[in-house]
Formats: sequence, C-alpha cells, structure tokens
Amino acid sequence: MITPTATAATFLALITTSFLFLFVTPPSKSTYHSLFISDSLADNTSISHHLRTLTRRPHSAGSEANAEAAAYVISVLTSSDIPSHIASYKVLLTYPLSRSLLLINPPPKQPTNFTLRQETYDGDPYADVEDEVLPTFHAYAKSGTVIGPVVYVNYGRVVDYLKLKEIGVNVSGTVVLARYGKIFRGDIVKNACEEGAIGAVIYSDRKDYGGAGEARWFPDGRWLPPSGVQVGSVHKGVGDPTTPGWASRDDDGDECERLSEDEVEQEGDVLFLPSLPVSAADGEEILRSIGGPVASDDWQGDKDAPTYRVGPGPGILNLSYTGEQILTKIDNVVGVIKGAEEPDRFVILGNHRDAWTFGAVDPNSGTAALLEIAQRLGKLQRRGWKPRRTIILCSWDAEEYGLTGSTEWVEENREILASRAVAYLNADTAVVGPGFYARATPQLDELIKRATQQVKDPENSSLTVYEAWAGSGSSPMLGRLGGGGSDFKPFLQHVGIPAADISFGKDYPVYHSLYDNFIWMEKFGDPKFQRHVAEASVWGLVALWLADEEFLPFDYLSYAKELQISTKNLESEISNNDINLSPIFKSIRELEEAAKEIEYQRKAIEESRGWITTAWKKDQLRVRELNDRLMMAERAFTDRDGLFGMTWHKHLIYGPTKHNAYGSQSFPGIDDAVNLAKELKTQESWNRVQHEVWRVSRVIRQASLVLKGQPT
Amino acid sequence: MITPTATAATFLALITTSFLFLFVTPPSKSTYHSLFISDSLADNTSISHHLRTLTRRPHSAGSEANAEAAAYVISVLTSSDIPSHIASYKVLLTYPLSRSLLLINPPPKQPTNFTLRQETYDGDPYADVEDEVLPTFHAYAKSGTVIGPVVYVNYGRVVDYLKLKEIGVNVSGTVVLARYGKIFRGDIVKNACEEGAIGAVIYSDRKDYGGAGEARWFPDGRWLPPSGVQVGSVHKGVGDPTTPGWASRDDDGDECERLSEDEVEQEGDVLFLPSLPVSAADGEEILRSIGGPVASDDWQGDKDAPTYRVGPGPGILNLSYTGEQILTKIDNVVGVIKGAEEPDRFVILGNHRDAWTFGAVDPNSGTAALLEIAQRLGKLQRRGWKPRRTIILCSWDAEEYGLTGSTEWVEENREILASRAVAYLNADTAVVGPGFYARATPQLDELIKRATQQVKDPENSSLTVYEAWAGSGSSPMLGRLGGGGSDFKPFLQHVGIPAADISFGKDYPVYHSLYDNFIWMEKFGDPKFQRHVAEASVWGLVALWLADEEFLPFDYLSYAKELQISTKNLESEISNNDINLSPIFKSIRELEEAAKEIEYQRKAIEESRGWITTAWKKDQLRVRELNDRLMMAERAFTDRDGLFGMTWHKHLIYGPTKHNAYGSQSFPGIDDAVNLAKELKTQESWNRVQHEVWRVSRVIRQASLVLKGQPT
Repeated sequence: MITPTATAATFLALITTSFLFLFVTPPSKSTYHSLFISDSLADNTSISHHLRTLTRRPHSAGSEANAEAAAYVISVLTSSDIPSHIASYKVLLTYPLSRSLLLINPPPKQPTNFTLRQETYDGDPYADVEDEVLPTFHAYAKSGTVIGPVVYVNYGRVVDYLKLKEIGVNVSGTVVLARYGKIFRGDIVKNACEEGAIGAVIYSDRKDYGGAGEARWFPDGRWLPPSGVQVGSVHKGVGDPTTPGWASRDDDGDECERLSEDEVEQEGDVLFLPSLPVSAADGEEILRSIGGPVASDDWQGDKDAPTYRVGPGPGILNLSYTGEQILTKIDNVVGVIKGAEEPDRFVILGNHRDAWTFGAVDPNSGTAALLEIAQRLGKLQRRGWKPRRTIILCSWDAEEYGLTGSTEWVEENREILASRAVAYLNADTAVVGPGFYARATPQLDELIKRATQQVKDPENSSLTVYEAWAGSGSSPMLGRLGGGGSDFKPFLQHVGIPAADISFGKDYPVYHSLYDNFIWMEKFGDPKFQRHVAEASVWGLVALWLADEEFLPFDYLSYAKELQISTKNLESEISNNDINLSPIFKSIRELEEAAKEIEYQRKAIEESRGWITTAWKKDQLRVRELNDRLMMAERAFTDRDGLFGMTWHKHLIYGPTKHNAYGSQSFPGIDDAVNLAKELKTQESWNRVQHEVWRVSRVIRQASLVLKGQPT
Repeated sequence: MITPTATAATFLALITTSFLFLFVTPPSKSTYHSLFISDSLADNTSISHHLRTLTRRPHSAGSEANAEAAAYVISVLTSSDIPSHIASYKVLLTYPLSRSLLLINPPPKQPTNFTLRQETYDGDPYADVEDEVLPTFHAYAKSGTVIGPVVYVNYGRVVDYLKLKEIGVNVSGTVVLARYGKIFRGDIVKNACEEGAIGAVIYSDRKDYGGAGEARWFPDGRWLPPSGVQVGSVHKGVGDPTTPGWASRDDDGDECERLSEDEVEQEGDVLFLPSLPVSAADGEEILRSIGGPVASDDWQGDKDAPTYRVGPGPGILNLSYTGEQILTKIDNVVGVIKGAEEPDRFVILGNHRDAWTFGAVDPNSGTAALLEIAQRLGKLQRRGWKPRRTIILCSWDAEEYGLTGSTEWVEENREILASRAVAYLNADTAVVGPGFYARATPQLDELIKRATQQVKDPENSSLTVYEAWAGSGSSPMLGRLGGGGSDFKPFLQHVGIPAADISFGKDYPVYHSLYDNFIWMEKFGDPKFQRHVAEASVWGLVALWLADEEFLPFDYLSYAKELQISTKNLESEISNNDINLSPIFKSIRELEEAAKEIEYQRKAIEESRGWITTAWKKDQLRVRELNDRLMMAERAFTDRDGLFGMTWHKHLIYGPTKHNAYGSQSFPGIDDAVNLAKELKTQESWNRVQHEVWRVSRVIRQASLVLKGQPT
C-alpha cells in the first residue's frame, strides 16, 4: 500500500521521530521509583490524617460509617487522579440481636450474670460513639439457648480434645470454655461442635493478651484490658455463605442465585453452635467455677491466675444468643491506573476497610498506607510517569465476616483475573509495631528483599529495612500464605495468583477489641507514623517494580528451593511410613531446571538487543511471551478438583488444613491426609497420602511445563 | 545510553531499514493463502499414496503396524521441513483373548455356534493380512461367561427400556440383543447393565447398514456385508482408565500414579458386562429365536427381515468373553511449525492414526489430508512463508479405545494449552463421500463458511464448497461438538479451546468393520481423491487464517446467536414448568454486547493506524490484548466443578449427556437435570434444573467479562 509519493514524507517522519527520541527522553522508570520512596514524597502527617479520619467511628461491614469511609477512600483516589468505582455485592451478614451469659456457680456462690461489655476509660475521646460498636459476638454463630456444665478445653484444638479424652473427660453435652490463640476461632467452635459440645465460650487469657507489669493495659499500656473482648467471625468457609463459589452480584434488580437458609446450614461452614467471645476477667470467673482434674502446666494461665481445672462443672453455663442474618450491600472501592504498554496485565494492591470496632490497626493502618501509595502515585503521574502495566488499588469490604468483599470480586472476575493478574499484594493489620514481616509465594521472595534494601528502617534511619529485618547476619525469613486470615486467600488459593502480605510489627493484643483505635496506634503502634511510611514504601515499591519492569521480576528458583525445604520437612514427618516422595522431588528438579532455563532466555533476549530493537520496541511480543510464562506458572499449582473436602481451594501448595484455617502449611492436602492416616492407621488412609503426594507432584510438573512454554 | 557519536550510525541504520522495507516487501500472507488452496499445490495422487501406505496393514493402537504408520507420518513431516517428535504414553488397552457365542434355539432347532468372523471375498488383496485384524470385540468389555434368555431391546436407549416396561418385559437376568445406531455403544452396554441385564450383544441391522438393491454390499457396493461387524470400545470415560484426569506419562523408568484394577472398576467407566458385537446375519439369527410380543413398527427391520419380537427367549444366549488388559505404549506424533511473531499461540490440527482394521476412512482419510496439508505448508515454507502463530500438527494414537492419545496429551499439557491454544481443528472420518459437513464452536462458524467460499467443490468445480453446502438458497448448517466421538473432546470439553471437526460425506456403513479399507475408499468413498483435496484445502485454510491473520477471526456474535437458539429450544422443552430462564437470556444479551464492543475496538485499532504504526509494528501489544480476549473467552465457558457426575467435563455449553455420549446437546447439565426431573417429578429435582440454569448463565457472563477485558 506504499506509493512512491509517500516515500519522502516517510523519511521526514522517521527523521523527526528519531530526533524526538534522542533528545526528548523522559525520566527513566528507576528515577520515578527512587522518587516514590524518597522523603520528598513520603508524608507521615497525611497518613496520620487518613487513619484518624477512617477510624473516627466504628465501621463494620454494612454500616453507614463504613460507607463514609468508602467515600473518603474514593475522594483520596480521585484527588490523586486515580479513576475509581465501587463494586457492590449483596451478601449475607449477621448481627447480634440479643446475648446473655449466666454462670451458675457451685453453691453457696451466687450465679454470675456477665455484662458482656468492654469498659471505656475516663477521658476516652470515643466514648460518645461507643454505642455504635456492635455488641461483642461471633459472626455466624448459631442462635439458641444452651445450658450445660462447663469444660475447660485450653485452645480447643484437636490435640486438646485428645488430651481430655486421655484423662477421661468427655465434652458431649457441655458448654466448652476455650481460650483464644493458636487456631482460628471458627475452628475452635467447629471442633467443639464435632466433639459434641452444645455451646462454646472463648476468652482472651491474660497470659496471652494481658501483658505484665504496671500500667500494662490500654490506655496506659498496649495490652488488652481485663474487660476487653476479641470479637470475630466463626465462618469456616469463604465469602457470602449464600453464594458458595459464585459472586453475590444482583444487578438491574435481578437477584443472583442464592442458597436458602437450610441449604446454607447444610453446607456446614457457618451456624455451628451458640457461642460468645468473652473477656479475660469473665474467662477467669468461669474458670473458678470449674472443678475436676487440674489441667496440665501448659494449659495454665499466668502466675497470678487461679489454678485451671478442666471440669466438667460444677459450674454451669447458660448461654443465649440470637443473631439476625440480613442480606446487606457491601462496597469494594476499586481504583485503576491503566497501564500504558500492557493495560491487560494487572498488579493488584488490596486491603480491607471494614473493622469490628474502630480498626486503627486492623485494617486501616493498611488503608492509610494504601492511600499514601495512591497519593505518591498521583504525584508520579503528575510528573509524567505512567505504569507499563495496570495498577489496581482495592479497598475491600466485609473482610471480617469471611473475606467476603474480596472473595465475591474474585469470583465474579475469576476468568479475567486468571488470564491477566500478575500479582496480588495485600496489607491488612499493616502496622502494629516495629519489625518488618512478609509472607509471600516464593517467586516474590527476592523482589521483596530487594525492596526492603531500598527503604530506610523506621526505627533506625542508618539501616535499611532489610538490614534490620535480617538482623545479625542471617538471611531474613519470609512466611507463607497457606492459611486464610486475609484477602490474599481468594487470589492465591482459588485462582493461583502470586501473592504477598506485608506488615510492620507482630504482637497486637487489642486485636478485634474496642481498643483498636487511633489512640492505641498513636501511643503504641506507630507514634511517628514512620512505620506506615515504610510500609507504604516497601509495599508500593514491590508493586511499582511489578508494574514497570520490562521482565517480570519473578524468581522460580526460590520457589523450587522452598518446595524442596517443605518436602524435606514432610519426609522427616512421615519417615517411618511407606510413602514415596520421589515424585515430588523429581518434579522440583524439573521446576528448578525450568527456572534456570527461563532466566537464561531472559538474558539472551537482553543480550540480543541492538539499539533499533530497544528504541522501536521490536521484540515486545518476545518479552511478553516470556513474562506470560512467569505469570502463568503460579496458576499451574492449582488443580481444578481442589483440596479434598474443601474444593473451593484449588491451590495444592498453599492452603488451609482441615482443623485450622490459620495454619500456614505447605501441601495442605498431604498434611490433612497424613493426619488422618496417623489417626486411622489403615493401609487405605496411607494410600490416600500417596495419592495426595502424586497430585502435588503433578501440579509442580504442570508449573515447570508452563515455565518452559512448549507442549510435550 | 545513547551517545552523540551513535547518532550518525543510527540515522544510517534507520534509512537502510526503511529502504529495505519499502522495496523488498515479501509476498503478502494472502498470496500464500491463495497458493495453499491452488491447483498447483494440491496433489490428489500424493494423498492417495499416503492413504494406501497408511492402510496397508490393520493398525490398531499398540500394534507394530501402527508404529510403522507413525514412522510414515514422521517421514512426511520431516520431508516437509516440519520438525516432529513422538509423545508417548503407557496406557491400559484391552485385547480379546477368547470369544464365543452360542444360541440355544427353541427346539427342535439345533443350537447355533456363531463363528464371529467377517468374510473375505475372492480376490481380496488384503486377505493375506486378515489374520492381523483383531477378532471382533468390544474394547473394555468385562470378561466372563453369561447364559440367559435373550431380549430384543431395539437401540438400547433409555426410552426403549421404558417401552419394554410398558409391555411388561423385564430384562433383568437376560442377555439383551440391541442394534447399533442412535447412541454410543458404551451407553448401550451401560444402559443394559443398569437395567439388570447380564450380557449384551449388539448387531448391525441391515435396515441401517445393509443398503438395498442388487450388488449393495462391499465389494460390489458401499454397504456392510451380512457378515460385517462393527468393532468398537465401550469405554464410557475418556483416556486411560488407570489415570483419570492426569497423564499416563512414565519417564526415566518411573511409573506415574495409576489406579489398581479394582479402582478402575469402581470408577465405573469400563468393564460393565460381557458383551460382543455381531453381524447383521447373526443378529437376525438371534432375532428368529425370540418369541413373546411382536415389537412395534419402529423396532422392526427392513421389509425382507423376519418379524422382530421382544422375548424374553425362548432363545438363550451363552456368551463368553475373555479380554486381557495390558499397559501398552502408544505414540502421538507431534509436528511443530514455530510461529515467527507469536510462537506462544498455538493453532492445533489433529487426527488419529490408529484404526480398528485398515482405517481407510476412519481415521486415515484424515491422516492423508493432514499429510497433504503438511506438504503444502512445507512448500509455502520453501517460498518464504512463516506463520505468525505456531501451527501444531498431531497424529493421535489409541483414539479408538477412548480418545486416549489426545486425552493424555491434553492432560499432560493442560496448563500450557489453557493459556496458549487458539483453536483445535479435528478431522477423523474425514472423507466418506460427497457433501461438506462441519461441527464447530460457534465463534468459528463464519470462518469456516469463509473458507468453504474459497475452495472448489470436489463434485462440481463450477461451484464452491460453500455453494454446494448451502444448497438451494438456505444458509449452511453447522453441527456442534457436544458429544464425544473424536479427539476434539479433551480440547474443548476439558480445557475450553475453540474447536471444529471438518469432513466430507455422511453415510458410512462399513464403519469399524473389516471392509474399511483402501479398496472401499477408491471404489466408493473418494475415487478421484478430490474430496480429500478439498478436505485438506478447507481444513488447512481455516488453520492458516487462524495462524496468520493479525486479528483472530473469532466471531462471538455467532456464539450469542447460537446460544439464543439453544435457550429458545430449552424454553419450549420445559415451558410447562416453573423454571426461570431469564438469567441465561440476560447473560446472552451481555455476551452479544461484548461481542459488538470488541468488534468496534478491533476496527478502532485498524483505523487509528498510521503508516509508522503498521511498518514498525508499534501496536503489537494492543493487538495481542484484543486477541487474548477473543482466545480466552471460550475458556470462560468452562467451570472448575464440571458437569454433575461427569466432573472431567468442564464445559457447560457443550458436553455429553448422561445416557448418550454421542448426543450433541447444548447445556448438557441442564439437559440431564431436566430428564431427571421429568422422571422424578419432585420439587427438588426441578430445583436442580434451576441451579444448572444459573450455572450456565454464570459461565456465559464470565465469557462476556473476558471479552470486555476489565474487571468489575
């Protein structure tokens, strides 16, 4: 189609273009990245303002205050030139209508009628909005009244019940008293239910949450006051219980498919038992009513606590709970910075917004950091930066009920995300104190370490976060994302998207209590808001590199290494049984080879480039081809049939185990099968272990084939 | 990195490059495509030679002759400069060890001991290799000896058994005699088993397979001789029964996971009953031994046949079958022409190679056409053509046993194919006579029509294939790929890859008999091999366009139209019940909108292009982004949980129904639920219909979201 007359114009165009290219080169991406983490862009005052604004009122999912918080998030995104919208779902939430807990003490002591209230203190600036806080409860507890002798079950784990059985204590027909910690509260209640208990009370033992010494409790100290209660959900599943596996999307007035109330109960993820969370003080009061055998040392409280006995009784608990289940609109806020070169590759940052109370730590330290990132990106945009890939910033709703906002969104967009999402980067309880913590899928390990090497440590500006994290000489440790606990779960465990969760600080005794508020953060969590600054820098920098680097900075050698460690651990755990792990070891060697190969190929592309190639982006499809392999390899760790008995969970490397949704195990399917086989001791049950070993080896092989990119 | 001294060199490079571009333009893609279908490249003599060579000896899966055929395929690919390799699997095949069938006639007639042999004729050039043909049998029939009165069950469908029940005939404890046709033989046996029969004999009724008039049978006519037997598999599942859902890949001497013999039987896809296929003559002989009620008119044979009665008895059948199950190596041949621009996008052509006997029609008419395509592509390559995307040519093994070669390959490469396969184009019984037939996923409809408009009709060179196909004015009809029957199944129904199956001719009475040989083809199927030429042209041209066109030629408006028709049909089928189909209608409207939108976007890209953009391929990533949406939309019709009770089948639009693996239904999950509800007539069973309606609406919505490309 080229006529001779076009030729002169063509030459002119070419010459002009190349002049422009040579002399009007925009700042490099790395210049922008340095700027992103520079002091000139960081703004701890602004972060503090975000947090104060977001946490002014209690804002659980479905509340007016949480809608206000959503509006605030949108306003900050908008003012940072980030187009945003709300993705709403109508989901089944539960609210407490009535609660009572009566302890019938052994005579002559009078019964105790617990007030079930967390105390405010003199001068509490939030006292005027305290009545907006939901009464202490367990979301998705079953409504009902139960009366029974009380049994102390320690942390309510399977092993705890085994111990009780050893000493002849049966919990059938009793109301169990468990202490928080070790496992997910939903598992505490479910285990109790499976053991035949008729009700459950869970308290925060002061040994675990109460601290020590003078002035240890909030507002004087960082620890949970004796009246403090950890509220929370006991939902064992994921997302809206009325729409398991699909999105609760009603539009144009049309309802989506929903399970009926009966069907929800049959699914077996919610409504196990009437249960209530109580304070340390109430827990101790109940413990004092329990006789029977003295519990073993590791079941006892701190030195000032009474001696804990296991019962049953003579104390009798009369627990009454009525919750209402309501279909409620929830709002995810989604902000999108469209990628200039690869708009169809998504780097997603997310954090939830809803809180059980004020949520200064959980989750709005993360929201404040997310908004800080948004503002810095807004400033970069104004200086000419455009990301290569699309960056999506998400503020999730109803995480506390069961990761509901993120889960419904992922379920709705499953197929798009499966083919387009590069990574999901989460922050939840983003800042609770000093010290960097990260959990990630292993191909992100090196990237996260690299980011921490660029950012100043908030405790000591002469060190990098990496140096402080690594401590005295050892390599820093990353955690993994096998458990649930936050919004990375649907992305990683349902769809197979590389994921990370990034935070500062560890201990956090006021978790899910009335005292998780701005005052706590200002006094104990992050007085200078420098940890928030560092959180935003590391989190944002990881996202920026993922969005901007031409080659996706994924390292599958780390993945192979990590899998090797996990398999070695498994080997020692089951060494005395006739299980053949060589299929996994073999598949890991293949993955390692594939990881090395793709790294050579990346270098080969770079080395083959002349100036023309680079300037005119002639090999963009070649780069894309390699990146697609890196992106899709994580998907290959998923299996369509999912985990046995938990089929929504498709990832066979990282997922929850049956008896603890918090447990961050590798190979959850193998782990569950091993536990069952150790219990049943049958050949058949060990055969299932071997089958799960095969399944894991096959997904690892699928991943190495994807990295190689050629069918066999 | 650009120094001033580089500038001069740069200009020179630019100028040189643009001169080269302007004056040394290679032939356009469409020139090559015209060449591909031109008389100068087509070679019917060569096709005939391929077919004769491939069908010299019987070559069932696992035989030495089939390995020879593989070597021949490789030699042709290699001589066409198409690198190829063998992808082997070790799979469970079955071979007949002993068979006997004795009919105890009502006295005074003597018992009949059937020879179970297909007769050769004088001068049969294949007589000397006849002993290499496997004895007539059903692959995966259960071994055993059964004796029972015989019942005639027509085609052995569920409706046939209902009719028998109406007239008081119970098949429990009997050996059923069914005639071939209407449904898959595996379903005939499975239905018999579910009805309580102890054995099954299936014959080819001359009304269906025997033709009429003088000289009607082979070698004089195209029809099945009275002694001809349709051999075949009764495998109800897919692939190697010892590796359901994963690949039978043993390498480095390590075995993969396999089910034990017991576990295979528990899976319930094979080994239902002792059964045997028999000839028309033997079937009639058995029918003559049956008394009881006269079968209804539609159960009768042709006018010269005896009157068919249903029994039971008095004839008694004594059926004995012993098969051996052996793990056998099978060989897929895979040839790859690497794409020059998008090597990571695969257009896959496939056809199986193994045959029950000589396989001149099934499958080697397709193999001959595939080799013709390979040779033409080899010639194009020598003239400078390179495909934009990768073209993969596959010669599958062990299709006859249960789509085994293709299934194992797809299962092994599942994750790569899921992210990289553009389309799978199948041919099996590619040429059996005049008339073009195509079945396809609907986004390929227009492309296939377009290809037939370019190719001369083999019966009348003054018409195009399209004109002959369309006939008198009406638009040509395409079939769909809901059933099984050939190797498109794992690609489409397990992974969600757009697929087509293309052939010439329809009736094919010698199917799976001794007489499917080169003589039959030369005399009746395609004497001039012009139909093979046309098959290669249409099939190859569709592949070439998919591989070369910059924008993938997928039309989702056709898909929306087709879904609308299917839903309207469903509506009329269930009109008298309280089922709400509006979720599906709504999702189809969304799909239609998305299909229109992506078409506008494609045009917008084309219109926005200047000369620079085109010449320097500046918007390749933009094109890729749009193509990826078109490619991945089909994947979205799959659901990870799969069809109820047939979970390997992930596609919710096209798949088999429970009682007929051949049935080419839309919405198989709804169809099965409706059938069950009509039988059970309970509210619960109708609720399941509604649930299946919701599931279909959700996958259609996922597809429209993928076409749009943006998360909500």
